[in-house]
Amino acid sequence: MEIKVLKNILDANDHIAAQNRKLLKEKNIMMINVWASPGAGKTTTMLRTAEALKEKARMAVIEGDVASSIDTVTLSKAGVTAIQINTDGGCHLDAGMVDTALQNLPLDELDIIFIENVGNLICPGSFDLGEYKRIIIASTPEGADKPHKYPLMFTIADACIINKIDLAPYINFDAENFTRTVTGMNTDIDMFQVSGITGEGIDEWSDWVLKQLDSYRK
Amino acid sequence: MEIKVLKNILDANDHIAAQNRKLLKEKNIMMINVWASPGAGKTTTMLRTAEALKEKARMAVIEGDVASSIDTVTLSKAGVTAIQINTDGGCHLDAGMVDTALQNLPLDELDIIFIENVGNLICPGSFDLGEYKRIIIASTPEGADKPHKYPLMFTIADACIINKIDLAPYINFDAENFTRTVTGMNTDIDMFQVSGITGEGIDEWSDWVLKQLDSYRK
Repeated sequence: MEIKVLKNILDANDHIAAQNRKLLKEKNIMMINVWASPGAGKTTTMLRTAEALKEKARMAVIEGDVASSIDTVTLSKAGVTAIQINTDGGCHLDAGMVDTALQNLPLDELDIIFIENVGNLICPGSFDLGEYKRIIIASTPEGADKPHKYPLMFTIADACIINKIDLAPYINFDAENFTRTVTGMNTDIDMFQVSGITGEGIDEWSDWVLKQLDSYRK
Repeated sequence: MEIKVLKNILDANDHIAAQNRKLLKEKNIMMINVWASPGAGKTTTMLRTAEALKEKARMAVIEGDVASSIDTVTLSKAGVTAIQINTDGGCHLDAGMVDTALQNLPLDELDIIFIENVGNLICPGSFDLGEYKRIIIASTPEGADKPHKYPLMFTIADACIINKIDLAPYINFDAENFTRTVTGMNTDIDMFQVSGITGEGIDEWSDWVLKQLDSYRK
């Protein structure tokens, strides 16, 4: 019975995700679902990405959090179009929440929507939101063993950002070993080494985003 | 219907948690449930705690992970009694999993059991495992805003360790501000600043553990 209920929930989610995907295709907007642990640097990466894409694409961010609107305030202050979803204890976004957010965004003025999912390396991986691409942000202080411990997201993501690369000299983090582990689990994944603080690697990362937008619109 | 099923699951969990609690009381063993984000330093803290308690209490660790047994191998190599639970995708431990682990630990030779829950700041907070105390480990690179975004665990934990305090000079982390936020949400919580790498603050933390053991056994 529990399994049946879970299946119903996932079926309903997939149905709304397909509707979101269709709407975005009509509007010619690419949506990217962003996964990460709490504090891996999702919002800082979004800020840097918005700076890099400023003259090249119009972007917005859907902010998913258990509580608070701190990140939406941060993004809005920096001039980035952002909308907050609070899950009130929920551990992931679902397609219905994203549907509501889409209805409240100026879709005719956008090229790219990023979804900052709830900070969680497990649950968000099971919920399709209607996105075109999925990315995971890992940060160096979390340690190089995370892909072994939380394999699902690393296995199904389209790109992986290793963030906080500026902290690598102060901690025991082997970026090459980490990259080998992830590309071993997922041969199609694209890897980036980035610092949201210094801006290192942001150009390569934002070029990847624009390349996806080209593919999406072809 | 979904809500009813969830309630049934939680009721069943609470029933097993109460059994675990009763068993541990009979065996005079204190159990502590440890929560944290992925990569906050749970295992390193466990290693340091085991060193500090070596002559004072006999401890074991129940290791919860989505996949892999990396941490159990690390602890076992260091001579710490440890047992692995893999949740196979599950985002938290439940009382039944801990029951199974308890049946496989040498309970007559233990004073303290730590449960390293799955790295997740949301889901584990809703599941009683039969523990006496609950602690949360936050790490400085995650940022000082985490209690606002993931309030439940910070509100119900008995102690909070701020780990990776050695990295504070390299990042923008205000430990006093963080402490004010957490103690504002939870006036009964005890706060510790610790480095699992340098050992700073481990004596104060392990003294707290021994004080809880005294209270538990009174």
